[in-house]
Amino acid sequence: MTRIGMACTKCGNNQAFSYDHVTCACGGSLLVQYDMELAAKTMTKQAIQSRPSSMWRYKELLPVSSPEDVVSLGEGWTPLSYMNIQGIGLPVDHVWIKREELNPTGSFKARGMSVAVSLLKERKARYAAVSSNGNAASALAAYAGCAGIEAIVFLPEDCPPLIVQECLSYGARTFRVQGLIQDAGQWVEAGKHLFGWSTVATLKEPGRVEGKKTMGFELAEQLGWKLPSVIIYPTGGGSGLIGMWKAFHELKQMGMIADPLPRMVSVQDAGCSPLVSAMGNHATVLDAPAATGMRVPRPPDIDLLLHILKETGGKAVAVNQVEIDGAQRYLGYRGVSSSPEGAATWAGLLKLCEEGWIRRDDSVVLFNTCHGLKYGKSLGLESVPLLANLKELFYHTS
Amino acid sequence: MTRIGMACTKCGNNQAFSYDHVTCACGGSLLVQYDMELAAKTMTKQAIQSRPSSMWRYKELLPVSSPEDVVSLGEGWTPLSYMNIQGIGLPVDHVWIKREELNPTGSFKARGMSVAVSLLKERKARYAAVSSNGNAASALAAYAGCAGIEAIVFLPEDCPPLIVQECLSYGARTFRVQGLIQDAGQWVEAGKHLFGWSTVATLKEPGRVEGKKTMGFELAEQLGWKLPSVIIYPTGGGSGLIGMWKAFHELKQMGMIADPLPRMVSVQDAGCSPLVSAMGNHATVLDAPAATGMRVPRPPDIDLLLHILKETGGKAVAVNQVEIDGAQRYLGYRGVSSSPEGAATWAGLLKLCEEGWIRRDDSVVLFNTCHGLKYGKSLGLESVPLLANLKELFYHTS
Ligand SMILES: Cc1ncc(COP(=O)(O)O)c(C=O)c1O
Ligand SMILES: Cc1ncc(COP(=O)(O)O)c(C=O)c1O
Repeated sequence: MTRIGMACTKCGNNQAFSYDHVTCACGGSLLVQYDMELAAKTMTKQAIQSRPSSMWRYKELLPVSSPEDVVSLGEGWTPLSYMNIQGIGLPVDHVWIKREELNPTGSFKARGMSVAVSLLKERKARYAAVSSNGNAASALAAYAGCAGIEAIVFLPEDCPPLIVQECLSYGARTFRVQGLIQDAGQWVEAGKHLFGWSTVATLKEPGRVEGKKTMGFELAEQLGWKLPSVIIYPTGGGSGLIGMWKAFHELKQMGMIADPLPRMVSVQDAGCSPLVSAMGNHATVLDAPAATGMRVPRPPDIDLLLHILKETGGKAVAVNQVEIDGAQRYLGYRGVSSSPEGAATWAGLLKLCEEGWIRRDDSVVLFNTCHGLKYGKSLGLESVPLLANLKELFYHTS
Repeated sequence: MTRIGMACTKCGNNQAFSYDHVTCACGGSLLVQYDMELAAKTMTKQAIQSRPSSMWRYKELLPVSSPEDVVSLGEGWTPLSYMNIQGIGLPVDHVWIKREELNPTGSFKARGMSVAVSLLKERKARYAAVSSNGNAASALAAYAGCAGIEAIVFLPEDCPPLIVQECLSYGARTFRVQGLIQDAGQWVEAGKHLFGWSTVATLKEPGRVEGKKTMGFELAEQLGWKLPSVIIYPTGGGSGLIGMWKAFHELKQMGMIADPLPRMVSVQDAGCSPLVSAMGNHATVLDAPAATGMRVPRPPDIDLLLHILKETGGKAVAVNQVEIDGAQRYLGYRGVSSSPEGAATWAGLLKLCEEGWIRRDDSVVLFNTCHGLKYGKSLGLESVPLLANLKELFYHTS
């Protein structure tokens, strides 16, 4: 077993591995540590190549002890699509989009929950609860269902209806609550003591960050063990950002990559952009924030997020609803179904190009974290013509 | 180039390759032929292993001449999940489910359209039209959008609303028509002459069958170049069935597999089951068929489908709405989002077990052809509790 303990990202202290104690006395976040020398022995570039096409190809650096406890639904190893941006005048040469919408449950949250629920199985937990803007909840629902664990999920009242229904379809006990994600979180905490469930909320257990870390591993492997120079990531609680940053450091430690860390960019909704504010910028707020995964007014460990953005020379950028809608249409018309969060990365790229922050020789990776389908707004078909005769066909197609 | 012509599945005649002439004078379907010796030189088990994780890993047996014309959005190489069926009393040992819902556009139709649209690009087509129960239309929309080709799609009036919206989100000109898929087909034929568009309807062009063929290749490769003994596939027009059958014959010809062909089972909706009737059985019709991809009253080449079922010792089986609903719930509670068509394969398995047609030592593969999300029926959340105090939490979780 390669899992050897946990280390604090703030004070550096080492501690024993724990399933539910992941905040250091100093307030920093505790992240899983591995025996890197042991891991490097079997996790070689060569060996990985013939492993399963899922994120479990990096099993040495995932914290589950026994293969029998791995709860997998085929998550990870999503396509990294090269975007054809020729002829649109964008002042950058190479842009990829990581197709996280092709994960089980339609979002990258599957990665985190695959690990978190595996750890629940390892410790023989029977109930797991989460507060979530939606995608983490449906991912918990699916993985818990797969593992025979009961899921209880708490969502903001205005969570996209199809995501609420997705939770139900995976058999989760599903509740909406008044307020935002932190309000949902209070119910999880309250019930924890009353009902004895395990919480898998962001940074309340060690598995989710580890699962999301595999996005970083995959990026490196899919680019031939090179790193892009910029990553644009829609940030809410930020565990994806933390995960990838950890992944790059681990790969460096193992000598598997030589490139500097990508400049990591957090894109946020102008209506709710704590990272943009904390980085000293001001987002022009036009509207209340939409109900997306980016709407997290108080990220559990904002200090760590700021540290990552600064260490890598990155940035936080806000985009508004109009920009997000336009980006969604742009990507859709090119065959990629993007959620508002995924579309925000394209909108963020345009903005950073405009500002001159992106350089022509940058190589940029966008994260399409979720499928657009899950945000379907209306079932009305009034606007779709019901053809009755050939004349209309002329009319509509001319 | 390995593509050398086409052969008729009925009279065996060989013809030159054609982009739009795929019906033989005898009425049989013309399928693409390859130079198998040439293909076998480079498409070795060893070589494939390090190729991209998409269906284009089998490029030698796909009919696109130049890599520049390949229109890809990351389709194929979907997970083959082993189902944990221990303890439920099913009289069969091994069942897998092929996770086709994890394709771009959320269904296996992406495979066919990736090839069909690549061929359109190769021949520099500007417009492409399709009649479809929905998923083929949204797949055409996405791939055409990616290739800069205009898509025009015709859907039955009662097509699931989210699939109609999906077509719009990928920029297709989208029409609903009165009647069923064959009625939609008449519009495509009418407009073909008026507007000069290419049709990519089932068995009207050579690409879609070839793309779906890759499901067969993947099955073999993912099972270590073995075949299952039974495949259960939700059948409408049947191009997936034809494709897989062709795939297995091609792999045999290349000496890459030794197993006999799987017994191929078509599962259909009891309300619309032309194959079940043609195989001499009678489906108990309870309801009108639901608007799914299985609802194809007149498959374009039913003779070929019957030939395949008989040659492989397969069967056609009908399942009703209650069985499909139950199956969808069963799979959902185990973490797999299944469409009605995908769920029908599980319902079909139960029925075949009950009938004693499945043997204990069979190895069965089910095809979950589409994501359940796309069939979302209502956006109402009335049934989902909005928590207001802790007492309720007790109430709802006890
Ligand atoms: C689709 C989507 N993108 C991005 C995020 C933000 O993720 P993170 O918590 O890693 O910042 C979420 C979180 O809910 C999400 O659902
Ligand atoms: C989800 C789904 N499953 C199965 C089918 C039937 O496919 P085939 O035409 O290969 O019989 C369709 C066709 O529309 C479909 O959309």
